[in-house]
Amino acid sequence: MSDLLHTLRQIVGPAEVHTEGDLSAWEQDWRRRARGKALAVVRPATTQQVAAVVRACAAAGTPIVPQGGNTGLSLGATPDASGREIVLSLTRLNTVRAVDPANLTLTAEAGCLLHAVQDAAAQAGLLFPLSLASEGSCTIGGNLATNAGGTQVLRYGNARELCLGLEVVTAQGEVWSGLRGLRKDNTGYDLRDLFIGSEGTLGIITAATLKLFPRPAAQLTAWAAVPSLAHAVTLLALAHQHLDAGLTAFEAMGRFALQLVQQHLPQLRVPFVEHPDAPWCVLLENSDSESADHARARFEALMESALAQGCISDAVVAENLTQAQQLWQIREGIPLAQAKEGLNIKHDIAVPISRIADFVAHTDALLTRELPGVRLVTFGHLGDGNLHYNVQAPQGCDAQAFLQAHEAHVNALVYDAVAQFGGSFSAEHGVGALKVRQLQQYQSPVALGLMRTLKRALDPQNVLNPGRVLV
Amino acid sequence: MSDLLHTLRQIVGPAEVHTEGDLSAWEQDWRRRARGKALAVVRPATTQQVAAVVRACAAAGTPIVPQGGNTGLSLGATPDASGREIVLSLTRLNTVRAVDPANLTLTAEAGCLLHAVQDAAAQAGLLFPLSLASEGSCTIGGNLATNAGGTQVLRYGNARELCLGLEVVTAQGEVWSGLRGLRKDNTGYDLRDLFIGSEGTLGIITAATLKLFPRPAAQLTAWAAVPSLAHAVTLLALAHQHLDAGLTAFEAMGRFALQLVQQHLPQLRVPFVEHPDAPWCVLLENSDSESADHARARFEALMESALAQGCISDAVVAENLTQAQQLWQIREGIPLAQAKEGLNIKHDIAVPISRIADFVAHTDALLTRELPGVRLVTFGHLGDGNLHYNVQAPQGCDAQAFLQAHEAHVNALVYDAVAQFGGSFSAEHGVGALKVRQLQQYQSPVALGLMRTLKRALDPQNVLNPGRVLV
Repeated sequence: MSDLLHTLRQIVGPAEVHTEGDLSAWEQDWRRRARGKALAVVRPATTQQVAAVVRACAAAGTPIVPQGGNTGLSLGATPDASGREIVLSLTRLNTVRAVDPANLTLTAEAGCLLHAVQDAAAQAGLLFPLSLASEGSCTIGGNLATNAGGTQVLRYGNARELCLGLEVVTAQGEVWSGLRGLRKDNTGYDLRDLFIGSEGTLGIITAATLKLFPRPAAQLTAWAAVPSLAHAVTLLALAHQHLDAGLTAFEAMGRFALQLVQQHLPQLRVPFVEHPDAPWCVLLENSDSESADHARARFEALMESALAQGCISDAVVAENLTQAQQLWQIREGIPLAQAKEGLNIKHDIAVPISRIADFVAHTDALLTRELPGVRLVTFGHLGDGNLHYNVQAPQGCDAQAFLQAHEAHVNALVYDAVAQFGGSFSAEHGVGALKVRQLQQYQSPVALGLMRTLKRALDPQNVLNPGRVLV
Repeated sequence: MSDLLHTLRQIVGPAEVHTEGDLSAWEQDWRRRARGKALAVVRPATTQQVAAVVRACAAAGTPIVPQGGNTGLSLGATPDASGREIVLSLTRLNTVRAVDPANLTLTAEAGCLLHAVQDAAAQAGLLFPLSLASEGSCTIGGNLATNAGGTQVLRYGNARELCLGLEVVTAQGEVWSGLRGLRKDNTGYDLRDLFIGSEGTLGIITAATLKLFPRPAAQLTAWAAVPSLAHAVTLLALAHQHLDAGLTAFEAMGRFALQLVQQHLPQLRVPFVEHPDAPWCVLLENSDSESADHARARFEALMESALAQGCISDAVVAENLTQAQQLWQIREGIPLAQAKEGLNIKHDIAVPISRIADFVAHTDALLTRELPGVRLVTFGHLGDGNLHYNVQAPQGCDAQAFLQAHEAHVNALVYDAVAQFGGSFSAEHGVGALKVRQLQQYQSPVALGLMRTLKRALDPQNVLNPGRVLV
């Protein structure tokens, strides 16, 4: 091993191979659920250095855990406890290499913060629409490696849809230079999408060419009380029809989730939370290429039509940016309010939008029957069919003990129901080391066989992030 | 071989294994550039039959050429002359299995005509936006296998971006059931995008779940004369800014291409073709979710701003659907007018939009210098950076002799220039058997190595469409 560390120091410089001191920034995951022990944390500064590190580790048979901002939620970038794995941190590759406004593209290195990419686009008068809670800490390389989602997928797609080209270091330590800024390119197999979402197990993304968009002239936010989740789905269809591509967010929140916000974050005023006919609320955002007045007129036409069809009980449109931000703070405050209420079991699931109301009714009933008193914190990106379907221990009960006793059972009930409704057990958070067992259980044998074939073909030595995604 | 044919007859029924008579509908390509000889044309009716055919052929070591509507332009679905290959026609798998309006999805079998898919969406009041000249004959399976482009890519993306899930028969004759209608699903590697665009060399697509969109309330078409291609690029940026997602088409046409239309299709009246300041014209389409009046107002604001900035010389907006169709007929008439003028050399290329004007200036000068008198028919989807950069023999010269003498040289000049400008030698038509050599020449060794590794891993026997895409 000291030979390998010597070689790594030669490649990246002795100051960038960390083996001592507090390595928790790299060894501990974001949600503090796992703490590993790395052989070393290696911080290359260039793509060529990344390639050389991979070649050195491959030669030594040492596994590599690629890491971006270390904000993942599925333990895909946390080293295991063996002390045998290298953490390869990409954060020093943090240059925005080019912005091309006429081509509506931007090329950034993997370690650029998502926020820095958004800023570089904004400085060119354009929009990079990927947006997540962790955008100040996560990196674009990690976003692509995990195919991140977020709040604007409805209009602009996941990280995958926002990427035109990649630069990747392969498991053999070669560099694939695929940074093409082309909207159309049918010259062989789609290598790009194979690496995107593979969580560093097939190759290491070192740079990407990304799509940019015109910035909207105005953004307006509204909040609607709806009589049921099924009505929220009807409202979604109406919103698509009225606003088309202007509809950039459609978030649904169950009453209990909102009550938690009201209780634990009392500085936020939650509209309609005690409205008798509002078991659900919806936050909508309309991004308009014309003007604020036009955005408001379109919203009003939508709300009128929704009221006439009985799919909303009441609604407010934010009068200004501050009000809009307050509405978003309610939506984004749910995870915090939930944490303040106590430990809980989180699920990041997707089902077809047409079945989502039935799924929630079915699964709510199942959980309430099996675990009386259990409280369901349901909210999320309804426009994408993606819910955070979280389970809070019964009131007054010891949450830690409840989780210990019931977490596996709750997960099985929820994920079985998801499968039954044609859904996904991991909509936007990925598999990592956390959901490897679920992947084996819920993907078909044919799909698993294909995935294993791809892994063996591209990384026969199993050097890249072994044990993550597939075992 | 008679054993294999016997088995195939057992699988699909004796009437659907064709070995005699006129098989040109399957053995000859669309543009009549190649005629092969198949061992048999096999027409299964179900996915299970497709799988059984693949298993039988794999056991016999017989290569399979999957075929949809046989409208491909790169000889990807034409059998070779050996008489050893089976043509596996998917056209009997032609059921639209489901339309799910609330989920904005549709599931169709591979052999459904593109037009039938568009129709099924329209009957549900929705839009399936993929649109190509051959939509009455091509199949959705072929569209996905070749990642088809067309006229609305600017707004809705290629076939790839319009697909959420696939059902695929693997080279081993297994069925991967990946027909999920989910906008977010991060559960392992992206198998879907690996099969899309692989031209039947990695697996056989038997069905797909596709994205649907709201139908626009109005569509308006405009035609602008521009002082140069660089001005057209400036107009494109303005159009993005003014119309945002409303901009559904942005087609550019050089003057010589339009002169050919005027000459050979005199029933079409070409605006501005003799305008002194119109070396290029642009066709724009604005799809509006509100109303025709609103679409017109937005267009007028765009044109005003474009006139003020000097990036258009003149413009007309179609007053009604008939006028709009006439403008589209001009654009779509170019290939026919070109054919009437005589044989020519076609290129389907893409370069970054920011470099397209320089690319055309550079390559025009190069060709004119190397082959004096050569005439350039340049037109295409400028909004996607995708040009059909075609070369017509000098006036009065024997086109066939010219092509024989110069086609390879012209191709080399054009494709070298494309590579120099960071572009693609096949934007939307694919590789097939026609551009295998270009793939080897212009893809990097690392990319080719990865593609060969994938092919060997997924189809180790080389049963699926051998010799296409990769050799």
